[in-house]
Amino acid sequence: MDSVLIDVVTGDRPAVLDITGRVAAFCAGRGDGLVHVFVPHATCGVAIFETGAGSDVDLLASLDTLFPRDDRWRHRHGSPGHGADHVMPAIVAPAISVPVIAGSLALGTWQSITIVDPNGDNPKRRVRLSFLRG
Amino acid sequence: MDSVLIDVVTGDRPAVLDITGRVAAFCAGRGDGLVHVFVPHATCGVAIFETGAGSDVDLLASLDTLFPRDDRWRHRHGSPGHGADHVMPAIVAPAISVPVIAGSLALGTWQSITIVDPNGDNPKRRVRLSFLRG
Amino acid sequence: MDSVLIDVVTGDRPAVLDITGRVAAFCAGRGDGLVHVFVPHATCGVAIFETGAGSDVDLLASLDTLFPRDDRWRHRHGSPGHGADHVMPAIVAPAISVPVIAGSLALGTWQSITIVDPNGDNPKRRVRLSFLRG
Repeated sequence: MDSVLIDVVTGDRPAVLDITGRVAAFCAGRGDGLVHVFVPHATCGVAIFETGAGSDVDLLASLDTLFPRDDRWRHRHGSPGHGADHVMPAIVAPAISVPVIAGSLALGTWQSITIVDPNGDNPKRRVRLSFLRG
Repeated sequence: MDSVLIDVVTGDRPAVLDITGRVAAFCAGRGDGLVHVFVPHATCGVAIFETGAGSDVDLLASLDTLFPRDDRWRHRHGSPGHGADHVMPAIVAPAISVPVIAGSLALGTWQSITIVDPNGDNPKRRVRLSFLRG
Repeated sequence: MDSVLIDVVTGDRPAVLDITGRVAAFCAGRGDGLVHVFVPHATCGVAIFETGAGSDVDLLASLDTLFPRDDRWRHRHGSPGHGADHVMPAIVAPAISVPVIAGSLALGTWQSITIVDPNGDNPKRRVRLSFLRG
């Protein structure tokens, strides 16, 4: 298994970061297998969906509805409502795998691989990419 | 890695399609490994849960509650409320892996592998099945 | 692929069980690869998030909000509201993979691997751990 850690910048506000190009570059020339995308952070997730047509904003708004940033959370560290960020990865998991065929991601036309980071207090993140020949 | 694309029909209404039999057929005779199930579509997910005792209807109803089909969505293409379909795959991801032991799916008694497709505008879908010997 | 079934006790109330130590023990000495964690049960999920600072309680409370234990469910077996437990695995999936580097889980500092079991009627569960060299 080949595995690398890459640095990404998700910024100081809740964000969805499209990393499809970087995952594709990692897979290029590798033949057939699975690429595994993992964020080693407790307040991030990985999602595959359409970006650039409003759904990234829609997802962040939905997460705020599902996990309101109020005082309900037992987890009390960080900014007000930050407890919501710590529940999110149970729902938007920090790991996903994508098939790779002849070195190319076998994504659908409208699918992008993204890092979902509702936590504006950690603008820099790392992502682990691993390739399994299977 | 052996990988195939299969055609499925999810129909013109929101649907949960049980594909356990087709995944099992793909794995038969392959020994030990992981089977990876992936939908290359931006408005579908893969879920493993019990079908046939009401929970498939319950899941579609829950998704309508979690992601209401109203005018809240920035994504404005397609039918009214269709923006909800584009957020769903962040929560019901388009990829999952299942252990295979001696060519058989190592599922629990009540688990089925399903395609969750809330989008009635795309009645035909494809599913990629990949087998990794590990 | 090496694969084992381990027994865990989630108890007779909704619970989040941290199994990081047991997964780490399974991976020790194995080199580089992916460990796949799978629960062969229809009312459990696997989540990676921070435990021990309140978020496990927060997650169970969130699940009760997202999937209320009332009479809305078509699934009518078991305790009142038990239909909610059967929808949960579509959202908190029963499978996840984690990179393993030189025999160690490549988790972030605050990440734990957990079994999420909202169903108090099944205090004993099994978890399948599988290692892929990739």
